[in-house]
Amino acid sequence: MGTCLMTSVAMNGLKEKVLTLDTMNPCVRRVEYAVRGPIVLRALELEQELRQGVKKPFTEVIRANIGDAQAMGQKPITFLRQVLALCVHPDLLNSPDFPEDAKRKAERILQACGGHSLGAYSVSSGIQLIREDVASYIERRDGGIPADPNNIYLSTGASDAILTVLKLLVAGEGPTRTGVLIPIPQYPLYSAALAELNAVQVDYYLDEERAWALDVAELRRALCQARDHCCPRALCIINPGNPTGQVQARECIEAVIRFAFEERLFLMADEVYQDNVYAEGSQFHSFKKVLTEMGPPYATQQELASFHSVSKGYMGECGFRGGYVEVVNLDAAVQQQMQKLLSVRLCPPVPGQVLLSMVVSPPAPSDPSFAQFQAERQAVLAELAAKAKLTEQVFNEAPGIRCNPVQGAMYSFPRVQLPPRAVQRAQELGLAPDMFFCMRLLEETGICVVPGSGFGQREGTYHFRMTILPPMEKLRPLLEKLSQFHAKFTREYS
Amino acid sequence: MGTCLMTSVAMNGLKEKVLTLDTMNPCVRRVEYAVRGPIVLRALELEQELRQGVKKPFTEVIRANIGDAQAMGQKPITFLRQVLALCVHPDLLNSPDFPEDAKRKAERILQACGGHSLGAYSVSSGIQLIREDVASYIERRDGGIPADPNNIYLSTGASDAILTVLKLLVAGEGPTRTGVLIPIPQYPLYSAALAELNAVQVDYYLDEERAWALDVAELRRALCQARDHCCPRALCIINPGNPTGQVQARECIEAVIRFAFEERLFLMADEVYQDNVYAEGSQFHSFKKVLTEMGPPYATQQELASFHSVSKGYMGECGFRGGYVEVVNLDAAVQQQMQKLLSVRLCPPVPGQVLLSMVVSPPAPSDPSFAQFQAERQAVLAELAAKAKLTEQVFNEAPGIRCNPVQGAMYSFPRVQLPPRAVQRAQELGLAPDMFFCMRLLEETGICVVPGSGFGQREGTYHFRMTILPPMEKLRPLLEKLSQFHAKFTREYS
Repeated sequence: MGTCLMTSVAMNGLKEKVLTLDTMNPCVRRVEYAVRGPIVLRALELEQELRQGVKKPFTEVIRANIGDAQAMGQKPITFLRQVLALCVHPDLLNSPDFPEDAKRKAERILQACGGHSLGAYSVSSGIQLIREDVASYIERRDGGIPADPNNIYLSTGASDAILTVLKLLVAGEGPTRTGVLIPIPQYPLYSAALAELNAVQVDYYLDEERAWALDVAELRRALCQARDHCCPRALCIINPGNPTGQVQARECIEAVIRFAFEERLFLMADEVYQDNVYAEGSQFHSFKKVLTEMGPPYATQQELASFHSVSKGYMGECGFRGGYVEVVNLDAAVQQQMQKLLSVRLCPPVPGQVLLSMVVSPPAPSDPSFAQFQAERQAVLAELAAKAKLTEQVFNEAPGIRCNPVQGAMYSFPRVQLPPRAVQRAQELGLAPDMFFCMRLLEETGICVVPGSGFGQREGTYHFRMTILPPMEKLRPLLEKLSQFHAKFTREYS
Repeated sequence: MGTCLMTSVAMNGLKEKVLTLDTMNPCVRRVEYAVRGPIVLRALELEQELRQGVKKPFTEVIRANIGDAQAMGQKPITFLRQVLALCVHPDLLNSPDFPEDAKRKAERILQACGGHSLGAYSVSSGIQLIREDVASYIERRDGGIPADPNNIYLSTGASDAILTVLKLLVAGEGPTRTGVLIPIPQYPLYSAALAELNAVQVDYYLDEERAWALDVAELRRALCQARDHCCPRALCIINPGNPTGQVQARECIEAVIRFAFEERLFLMADEVYQDNVYAEGSQFHSFKKVLTEMGPPYATQQELASFHSVSKGYMGECGFRGGYVEVVNLDAAVQQQMQKLLSVRLCPPVPGQVLLSMVVSPPAPSDPSFAQFQAERQAVLAELAAKAKLTEQVFNEAPGIRCNPVQGAMYSFPRVQLPPRAVQRAQELGLAPDMFFCMRLLEETGICVVPGSGFGQREGTYHFRMTILPPMEKLRPLLEKLSQFHAKFTREYS
């Protein structure tokens, strides 16, 4: 009999809990997720204190910590919500207040649902019609390169699909444990998922001096070192970058693909910001397109999973949890296993599938909703581009802050100089120095950003991630307030 | 360096895939999920063949394999969809076509959303207002016993919450590996989740002779045997039962709680069918209520997680993926870890949260929507009760089929006698005998049910799970057709 049989009775006569920090899943304990970490919990408390009338040096908390456009006041795209409302409550199909094309879309989707209702489960991989819409979208995006609906799996946001693919990849123990290369700085979903799955996180560093470029020599260094203690089997790329905002050049993508092929690494391309490219001269190239255009053996053999989401782009429909993964060159038997694994979760949320369907097949120029849809879409993207530029500009005017161009995605990730005495003070408090800085920033200004240590950074450098999502009229004062706080903080600890 | 470094090149010059059946996660390979298994894939193929005009001995496939009410033609509850449509497309708040109370509910929910939009992420545990609504619902359900909103976590359907709690519980290796007691027959989410998490499944058998009653002596037998090779730490109960349809008596629940407390087992109560109780004399008792009424030490110390869903009950809103878990007596530090784990997934789908909010706070008698809501709700539940009774009755008239009363939930799980020659033939084909029976049933009648082997059953006994969801006018012919097929099958192999 195992030692687990012993019943512990504490001094006070209470039985110990079954589930404690000591007995729980140690992998879960190791999980960290800074985007919703202690700084965000403190922001919630401050909001509550403000509501209760507690005096603060600010009147509102600005949540610049998370890529949540609608929470920052961005309006939903009318057409998307019209179609979804029609699907949710089909009585509205008789209403004169909805455009014909929205009704047509809704009817088409309802026809494809079990019992013609969003309330039925879909098949586990998502509604077939919508998988076909996604395939057509990918073909258009990639200049006609074919996409197979059977290789597309709808998901509960991109995070869910990323976890599913990582879950397939995890195996081995000790020195054969699966290693996964992730960029540093990274979006902490990756580190969290790898901790939870007990896989080995293998860090490769993006080059801050070259606008967070990805360098294959650095990939090779990371890989070689990792092979001493684990079995690296996958390489994750985030393009456009989160939190770093770079957009990868085509040659860089080609080099990464050659590297992955030679080193036998499964490629995971997080492309959820594919519609969020702002910088002149920057262009989004999908890994699928580049891979295919490189021809054999890459096109025919290199395994790839590419992820997309309804939470970002111009629509920002985070709350609906919609997304998809396209798999390329996946082993057929493994794909069956993936299908089986997805079936246990029954299906992704159908409303998120519906929104995804609108995103991948928006109104055509001949449709009555086209003009408004296009205008709303362009307005959002143009404002994001202006905010990306403004952010870079204001930060770079501030002494001690240096910000790479925000070429894409929704974040700036500026580097901040922190005086040695501040670093020392942070250490005394048991905090990462940039956590100390961000906490002080929050307490004194109400601005909530996430410390760079939550994403990873070269030792001795300090950063924070701030979204570019606050409305234009708030963003400039916000950036200035933040820069001024940094100057004050620097003086205080000099 | 690990052995993983070697690059395999097959005879044809192709590199081997990184991810193959041999290299993939072995835990995922072991996962099985019968409710969407081979029989359902075959049903999909048959539907396609019918559409293509292939001649079959039937004109439609009847999916009685999954608890998906709306796919079987059940209409959504009007009030739920009205409120959700208003939330999705708030322009409708100006429409005269929606009742005032639906508008009030929608406005209240939108006020509680980031940016007053369903498109914003909610906090990871779910919208605070809705957690409070859930707490009030639980208090009413349990005769005033308090529920704390901070112990309630909204989820992506019940499955998601069950997986989260199991994930916390999994630890150890070899003889200290976490064991989890589950009923046999079980809903295969449990076996699938335990396989995926590499935990040990510990089977306890329900007593078919006593209408699938749960017997503590059997729990004890299972526990004692399991302690030889693992560390049993949790006990799962499904009440009302899936696939077995029994409703537990209060004394039985008390006995289970005493057992769990004495043996230090974390209790997981799957109570998603709490609104689906049909049999006279049967009544749903929540584990939370019984636990609390038993007083200390049970009320104050026994750890419990109770799960609920919007997919079942009278609403059957499966596609929206809404649900919740209430935790009781959870260690505070573990609860923080759970919160952190949930935050990595960002948030449960907000539309599912909205539907849950309606389910737990439906129209009050003074509200304009009350009469219609109540009528729709009662009609669904009354029809389900009639179908439960009809199912039991028709099956028990058939020689060689024996069906326990369907006291609750949405399934019958009849036992079928299969002739020895049929069993032999199945073995030759490498199929479980009841899989062979169900496959033949599907091919010859178009009726899709799930073999008992997908849920677990005593060796040498054979069952199938069939939902009671087909519309009344289809259900009787269906039951008769199935009984006749069984008679024919029996003759064929005698």
